Amino acid sequence: MTVFYRGSGDAPSPDRPGRQESLRDHNLTLIYRQIAAAGARPVSRADIATSSGLTRATVSRIVEELVAGRLVAEVAPEQRSGARRPPTGLVLSREGPAGLGLEVRENYLACCIVDLTGTVRHLTIVPGDYAGQAPQEVLAGIAAMADAAIAGAREENMTVVGATLAVPGLVDGRRMIRLAPHLGWRDIDAGQLLADAITTANVPVTVDNEANLAALGEMYASEEHLTHFLYVSGDTTLGAGIVIDGHLMRGARGWSGELGHVSVDPEGAPCHCGARGCLEGYASLETLRRAMDLPASPELVSAIAAQADAGSPAMLAALDRAGVALGTVLAGLVNVFDFDTIILGGGYAVLASWLTDPVQRELDRRVLTAGWAPVEARPSLLGPDAAVIGAALTVVDEVRRYPPGWLAEGDDKRSRARRESAPQLL
Amino acid sequence: MTVFYRGSGDAPSPDRPGRQESLRDHNLTLIYRQIAAAGARPVSRADIATSSGLTRATVSRIVEELVAGRLVAEVAPEQRSGARRPPTGLVLSREGPAGLGLEVRENYLACCIVDLTGTVRHLTIVPGDYAGQAPQEVLAGIAAMADAAIAGAREENMTVVGATLAVPGLVDGRRMIRLAPHLGWRDIDAGQLLADAITTANVPVTVDNEANLAALGEMYASEEHLTHFLYVSGDTTLGAGIVIDGHLMRGARGWSGELGHVSVDPEGAPCHCGARGCLEGYASLETLRRAMDLPASPELVSAIAAQADAGSPAMLAALDRAGVALGTVLAGLVNVFDFDTIILGGGYAVLASWLTDPVQRELDRRVLTAGWAPVEARPSLLGPDAAVIGAALTVVDEVRRYPPGWLAEGDDKRSRARRESAPQLL
Repeated sequence: MTVFYRGSGDAPSPDRPGRQESLRDHNLTLIYRQIAAAGARPVSRADIATSSGLTRATVSRIVEELVAGRLVAEVAPEQRSGARRPPTGLVLSREGPAGLGLEVRENYLACCIVDLTGTVRHLTIVPGDYAGQAPQEVLAGIAAMADAAIAGAREENMTVVGATLAVPGLVDGRRMIRLAPHLGWRDIDAGQLLADAITTANVPVTVDNEANLAALGEMYASEEHLTHFLYVSGDTTLGAGIVIDGHLMRGARGWSGELGHVSVDPEGAPCHCGARGCLEGYASLETLRRAMDLPASPELVSAIAAQADAGSPAMLAALDRAGVALGTVLAGLVNVFDFDTIILGGGYAVLASWLTDPVQRELDRRVLTAGWAPVEARPSLLGPDAAVIGAALTVVDEVRRYPPGWLAEGDDKRSRARRESAPQLL
Repeated sequence: MTVFYRGSGDAPSPDRPGRQESLRDHNLTLIYRQIAAAGARPVSRADIATSSGLTRATVSRIVEELVAGRLVAEVAPEQRSGARRPPTGLVLSREGPAGLGLEVRENYLACCIVDLTGTVRHLTIVPGDYAGQAPQEVLAGIAAMADAAIAGAREENMTVVGATLAVPGLVDGRRMIRLAPHLGWRDIDAGQLLADAITTANVPVTVDNEANLAALGEMYASEEHLTHFLYVSGDTTLGAGIVIDGHLMRGARGWSGELGHVSVDPEGAPCHCGARGCLEGYASLETLRRAMDLPASPELVSAIAAQADAGSPAMLAALDRAGVALGTVLAGLVNVFDFDTIILGGGYAVLASWLTDPVQRELDRRVLTAGWAPVEARPSLLGPDAAVIGAALTVVDEVRRYPPGWLAEGDDKRSRARRESAPQLL
């Protein structure tokens, strides 16, 4: 028997032959990551030379390029009397390239700027009722927020090098919104519309599902080294962002995360999707709203939390039912995918005091390996802003993955071209 | 607000500074992959120079190393009268490094050898009742099969450079069997025991879950470019191997694949794991056996297929119930992870005529995006031998990923050391 082998070795290789000129890019990336890894602690050229094994001359030449390109900043050494003058420290620059995060939801628009150090330098939220509004109008509104943020960033010597839009729906090709049911949008080329509507700069725009971006935001922001987790976004509908081996998993068509339509009970109540017994019918905020006969409102999650805080037995029971159903489904996903952490985000972050216990109980009870290594369910760190901050961080992450592509950051077209061809080094 | 950024850029970089000496390894890998990608079609040195952009001299020097190291073979050109003598072709070698696959199951032991081209050169299956036998004895038995296969491979000028053992259970660190319930094994250092028991060669042994290895085997053997699929192994118990973006996903602790303990009905029958309503109670072969009151036997799957073939209404109904439960769970996993293919393997491959329909029906009905892009359920290509062939292919895949590490393949210790440090280039 012959297996016609089509393993990874058969895939057309993206590599080019190794040549001398690529070494500069390679070493520049290496040095940049070393400075990034030190966080707020400055490192010296000598430190870099020692730990990288590169010559002092090579390190100095590359550091000069990084400083000139505003990817790295020099900080004055601390004065120590009597001692020899300590070396100049290097840190990531708070000026230079920055990322723009945008978010459209049925009840708010959001916009933020994050600099290379990961600091949120700007964050605006505009509440409103955007469900059913014309996509062009809504996107024009968010473009105006983006233009103001870009102009403000310029005043602080930052250059916005890319924008990412978070949407509650299925996205094709990082650009087309295939379906965003609660906005009432279908087949909208949001990437193009938004790029056209932003007038202050020629920034490349990508579009992604909000739970995906929130998961990335949580990964970047977490103090643990999170590599295998499921971010669960609980709002009107449910979504999930999947991180495995430190990478976001979008699925075969980019449509991963439809957590709301996992079956809790195959013979359960009919769902609007056409199936029966879907998790959304047990655990979405909309389901809680109907069960408790609350009015539809952009402030629904606060209303639910207020009733639970006041000790309403009916609300507490409804939250427990939601948590049990959610925990049952999550335990199944952990059994198959072996996540060690579940992050409760979106509205679930606000309701975590009541949901974490039943979710954790079902995980402990239903995960086969829970006895050897428990799975932790916990609320999101970034809370309701996780998606828009995560969106901006994805832009920053691209710069940090492959800094050589960004040294010509004043030239937007070149940035865009190089960005598309940047190899995945990490 | 400051997000202390811990993105991928913060992770300690595995890269070393780029230096001249690594270019040879880089270019050697590039050339090897180009020859591998052509499959059975020979490529010439000139073809390689043209498509890689490397000089003819560099290509010739590296090809010479590959031929001397028995990673590549030269094939005589076809004679064409009158024309200029065509160039010598290069193909992957059928001699040189080869992979050894081994498998322990409750009802058989298996052993196979696969060469660099992906051809199965040797396959032995020894049926028996291995459940509850002492691990040392069973592993001694499989080591004897391995020794015979290694000796046979030597006679055909192959050198077995590594072995992978497939087991039905949870594996830690690619070596320790944490739990294999149907063998009755717990905390067995199978990697060490097997490496000690194989006496004809000093081969490094890794241990992995059978569904993981079968999934890899299916990926390597498939003519489509499978990148996002779930391999489902249906036997006494259920297992799953997960491939996302072309990579096997083992999970945070390496314990992914416990498909049998996903809930079908949270209030269902108690499961031996302590939870209720687990899929295993609906869809394992053991559940079918009990429902149909069949005797326990290593030939159980054939007995089930025979009854279904004979048109037994009770058996057909039992298979349909199993397929509906399986399809319901799989639809949930597809909703969350966006697989485009489900492969029914192990005993399910034998029963696919009766299981595929109900599974496909539930996928079509319950997957939210099925209307846009259907998900296909189909039987495995490699059938019951998928795990042992996949095990051998993983060894071959390591050679193909990083051939420079294998040019000293006569020296086992060096091979092992280089293998452990081989970068993941693909």
